[in-house]
Amino acid sequence: MRQLDSFVCGGRHAGGAPQATLFNPTTDEPLATVSSAGIDFRAVVAHARTHGVPGLAALTFAQRGGLVEQLSKLVHGAREELIELSIQNAGTTRGDAKFDIDGAIGTLAAYARYGAELGERKFLYDGAGVQLGRTARFWGEHVLTPRAGVAVHINAFNFPAWNMMEKAACALLAGVPVIEKPGTSTALTAWRIAELVFQSKLLPEGAFQFISGSVGDLLDHLGGQDGLAFTGSAATAAKLRGHANLVRHNVRVNFEADSLNSAVFAPDLEAGSDTYNLFLANVALDMTQKTGQKCTAVRRIFVPRERVAEIEAELRGSLAAIKVGDPSDSTTRMGPLASAAQLADVRAGIARLAAAARTACGGAAPIRDKGCFVAPTLLVADDAHADVFHAEEVFGPVATILPYDGSASSAAALVARGGGSLVTSVYSNEQEFLEQAALGIAPWSGRVWLGSDKMAEQSLAPGMVLPAMVHGGPGRAGGGEELGGLRGLAFYLQRTALQGFKGVIAPESFAAKAAAAR
Amino acid sequence: MRQLDSFVCGGRHAGGAPQATLFNPTTDEPLATVSSAGIDFRAVVAHARTHGVPGLAALTFAQRGGLVEQLSKLVHGAREELIELSIQNAGTTRGDAKFDIDGAIGTLAAYARYGAELGERKFLYDGAGVQLGRTARFWGEHVLTPRAGVAVHINAFNFPAWNMMEKAACALLAGVPVIEKPGTSTALTAWRIAELVFQSKLLPEGAFQFISGSVGDLLDHLGGQDGLAFTGSAATAAKLRGHANLVRHNVRVNFEADSLNSAVFAPDLEAGSDTYNLFLANVALDMTQKTGQKCTAVRRIFVPRERVAEIEAELRGSLAAIKVGDPSDSTTRMGPLASAAQLADVRAGIARLAAAARTACGGAAPIRDKGCFVAPTLLVADDAHADVFHAEEVFGPVATILPYDGSASSAAALVARGGGSLVTSVYSNEQEFLEQAALGIAPWSGRVWLGSDKMAEQSLAPGMVLPAMVHGGPGRAGGGEELGGLRGLAFYLQRTALQGFKGVIAPESFAAKAAAAR
Repeated sequence: MRQLDSFVCGGRHAGGAPQATLFNPTTDEPLATVSSAGIDFRAVVAHARTHGVPGLAALTFAQRGGLVEQLSKLVHGAREELIELSIQNAGTTRGDAKFDIDGAIGTLAAYARYGAELGERKFLYDGAGVQLGRTARFWGEHVLTPRAGVAVHINAFNFPAWNMMEKAACALLAGVPVIEKPGTSTALTAWRIAELVFQSKLLPEGAFQFISGSVGDLLDHLGGQDGLAFTGSAATAAKLRGHANLVRHNVRVNFEADSLNSAVFAPDLEAGSDTYNLFLANVALDMTQKTGQKCTAVRRIFVPRERVAEIEAELRGSLAAIKVGDPSDSTTRMGPLASAAQLADVRAGIARLAAAARTACGGAAPIRDKGCFVAPTLLVADDAHADVFHAEEVFGPVATILPYDGSASSAAALVARGGGSLVTSVYSNEQEFLEQAALGIAPWSGRVWLGSDKMAEQSLAPGMVLPAMVHGGPGRAGGGEELGGLRGLAFYLQRTALQGFKGVIAPESFAAKAAAAR
Repeated sequence: MRQLDSFVCGGRHAGGAPQATLFNPTTDEPLATVSSAGIDFRAVVAHARTHGVPGLAALTFAQRGGLVEQLSKLVHGAREELIELSIQNAGTTRGDAKFDIDGAIGTLAAYARYGAELGERKFLYDGAGVQLGRTARFWGEHVLTPRAGVAVHINAFNFPAWNMMEKAACALLAGVPVIEKPGTSTALTAWRIAELVFQSKLLPEGAFQFISGSVGDLLDHLGGQDGLAFTGSAATAAKLRGHANLVRHNVRVNFEADSLNSAVFAPDLEAGSDTYNLFLANVALDMTQKTGQKCTAVRRIFVPRERVAEIEAELRGSLAAIKVGDPSDSTTRMGPLASAAQLADVRAGIARLAAAARTACGGAAPIRDKGCFVAPTLLVADDAHADVFHAEEVFGPVATILPYDGSASSAAALVARGGGSLVTSVYSNEQEFLEQAALGIAPWSGRVWLGSDKMAEQSLAPGMVLPAMVHGGPGRAGGGEELGGLRGLAFYLQRTALQGFKGVIAPESFAAKAAAAR
């Protein structure tokens, strides 16, 4: 069986004894193994610092944006091949595969445009200057420069292409080299992209390295200019956050973890209205797209108590229409979970929810002889306040309807019970309900999505992460921030206050001369 | 002997058995004891959440700014008393006491002005909106709302007034209640301010609590909406950063730790020029102000090798003129260190530096029979690359002259050896030197201060932290950020992406209606 190389220190590294096997979750057939055994991680970090840091720092934002654009085209050029790999290794339908791969292509393209807008500059000014002395002679500015270190990206299994490239886009545009570590179970797509990047020789030496297998002692070699960005489970996030070397050296961390996202259905919505239909479509999509394996997928559906039976019936109907099966079959709407480990976790999670709620459809029982299949599962709770609904994230096609009293403040308080979410959607045509809910939820949710008739035709579903909007959330959601346009570069830049004579440090002199001297 | 109360849960709390004694470092006389024994820290956190969070959230930024202004006036009204307490308990000269207390007054006043500018709003928009759909109907905004938690502030002993109130100013203006814990050895000034705040009843219930003594299990009760801001040693910072509960719940942290700040003397400076004199004055001030107990004080003085003898002679002359003694004597220019523990640390640190460098003046030997006195100590190294000079922060009136080759790039590389600094000053009249040094140093230093003839008359010394400029630094300096105008509020606010119909979420509708509904 083929073993996936790593791409480190300017070359391919064929690992030692296999550390893990990748499977096809539809057929349970093994596909490849990974191993990083034998990699000298100190040398990997040194390679990034010695070559990647100066190589990227020598370029302007516009030049780095040009590289990011070429990466977008590179992935686009391999789109069909990558879709096939995703279907094989991640069990995604073709549509779900495109969601991941087109997400990577689109996010790279968006950051390429940001780079072009930033232009031929090597550092950025942050905000307006300020007079510090009696006159403007003693002046203050803030500048943003690329950190002189490497960014380690530990990525999630559910979006092997998008999650790697959205992080890489921000780091590379900011001028910081990356070491990418994919989620192992679905690494094939990420690995092929990394191979393409390696073969293309597009990027400066040391700017992009890729680990197939365990990260070994990589994190022990990071220092105060380096960063670690992680997407994955809250448990792993906590372990990484407490890592002795990261703590000792103030390594910057940016975490995006599990969270219990919510959809709130307001009492004003009439059956059949645009927003009513949008709510149903989005919830069903969120539950089943990527077989529910989206960090932004809805897990808690808040419905006014007197509307629960109606919404339950509607959603059961929607979910019943979703054909589950072999993702390579074009009529299949939902494939298997990504791995046997996920299947076991999801079944156990459904059982815990089902102990406190009624199962409206689906359930933990197996639905096929082989493969990691589970049925779309809707539960209905009587008591929305039971802890389990706000603590148990089942990372699959599973959500629970929770009754509430129909007030925006109650909905916000229930959303907050999740301890921090990536996204919360609220559906209403009443401005006051939307405002109260949004402001009550805002401290607890990195993104709040407000559905109403006027945008129903044009909106993108709340589960979709857009380059222009911040992705991340407080507390349980990891406390990090990614994307959000240029906000996504902040993690990779150092903000520095400059003080001095205005004629020395203000943009019209300092930056102009720095540009002229290039 | 008097024991200092805590101010928690709306009342005074007289602690149990003393946990520590505060001394007069000039006379070694005990002044007071502190104890937090018996405080129910879970209740303290709950009090902040139950009363402080809604109490502050109900106010607009302008209203909170008004409270911050009243705090400034409150401290100003007790200025003479506070100066006396500082002289007694911290061993500061009158000038050094004012530096701390006026810093608190001024920073509160600055944030009061920011509050007035933000106006009658309860949340802020962050950046411009962005079109997300085919037309502007599907729209995106980012908003900043107060986090629904409490901020614990563990403050440094060296600026009991300023450090507490600069943190409190940002938190309170942002709308987040605080629990303040002063550095114990010099807590008297902070305690008196806290008592004044308590007695004034200016602030909403639960908005400001104060712990005299140990924080006990306080940090075990923090969650994902809470924050911890710490100023102090790198060792304590690392311990706090790895704290199990903070890690588990993604409690936000903001750390400002020890760092090895530098001054860079460029080869172009002629003896007697304005910038030359400014360099000498600032270095001598930085070394001896607050007896060198400033996190921003210069520890490494980079001088072109051929100018070392000249600069050494100049600085020896400056330091010899500084009268060390009883800080209550108005002719005294430098008082004792703040405590016996600091004295022991500083003596040991000087000994470690002196093992690798020549002692030009001062040294580790005692200079008085009693009190925590040490002489201003200048060392001169032959090899600037020895690790000790970039690793050993001696937190007293101590700095080392380190020779370099006179190039901006060498200076920047040597500054970087410190692993992250709060501030670096560069003195030159050559724009190219200033630019190269500034951009090379920027990733490694939270602030870069550029001295030149044109600003020499008006500048404030690099050791001075201004509300408008970011304070903090990467790596060894803790990786945090405070102040910097409105940037200082970010730690206390949650940034949330809003998506929806433009007519619902854009400032002209959403914020306007929210304001009208108030």
